[in-house]
Amino acid sequence: MVDILHRVGVISSVDEVYTALTTIDGLAGWWASNTAGNADEGGVIEFRFGPGGFDMKVTELDPGKKVVWEVVDGPEEWIGTEISWELKQSDDFAIILFAHRGWREEVEFMYHCSTKWATFLMSLKSLIETGSGAPDPRDVKISDWH
Amino acid sequence: MVDILHRVGVISSVDEVYTALTTIDGLAGWWASNTAGNADEGGVIEFRFGPGGFDMKVTELDPGKKVVWEVVDGPEEWIGTEISWELKQSDDFAIILFAHRGWREEVEFMYHCSTKWATFLMSLKSLIETGSGAPDPRDVKISDWH
Repeated sequence: MVDILHRVGVISSVDEVYTALTTIDGLAGWWASNTAGNADEGGVIEFRFGPGGFDMKVTELDPGKKVVWEVVDGPEEWIGTEISWELKQSDDFAIILFAHRGWREEVEFMYHCSTKWATFLMSLKSLIETGSGAPDPRDVKISDWH
Repeated sequence: MVDILHRVGVISSVDEVYTALTTIDGLAGWWASNTAGNADEGGVIEFRFGPGGFDMKVTELDPGKKVVWEVVDGPEEWIGTEISWELKQSDDFAIILFAHRGWREEVEFMYHCSTKWATFLMSLKSLIETGSGAPDPRDVKISDWH
């Protein structure tokens, strides 16, 4: 069992980050422009990218502190994995501890997703700090796999 | 035991990427401007950043295919860990499979290093594709921990 982990700090409040993680508009601003669904606890959020997408069930919401999603549809390697966002304030920074856990194998796609998550976290940071993120389809391209 | 994994594709040949990983000038162009030491197999490369640095022993060099370093000095969490770079050509892309293995615990510093490695891999990609990387001290800042 292997995990993808990341940490970024956003010059903002944890509440602002929480909003960007728990509203359709917020999510569309840094991850997938084409995002729809129900972002409430128990709801399913549908993220759509060029080649496919992910459906995430919102399994935990703790305002300003934590968000957890379970992947209920998408690439086979993702189904059943869990994505969690822990937030804490450290002076001027809202610190995000991100984890994508439950990968069954260290497949090459996991290496790709790890790097891609980092660029999307930087997109989230940019969205909040500057008002402009880089969600799909204008996301940062990292390789032949986009 | 937890690992940091990343995958990027550079529009170039594996030989160009290999040079950027195995020469002092190459390394200084994308990771730490202040890099010195001996980049030959068995040698120790000294990377210096503002707050400190890393000494890496070069334990394996396979031209155009693989580079492995062992961390022999630096932050306590890094000592004894291993950093490997596997290269392969995929059409126009030199694919890098990066791994930083042997972390003893999922400490918060590991989350940070995972994201920071991603930004330095993008710096390496940029160095080769555009001639300009973002090594320390003009590296991309990701948080209160730089």
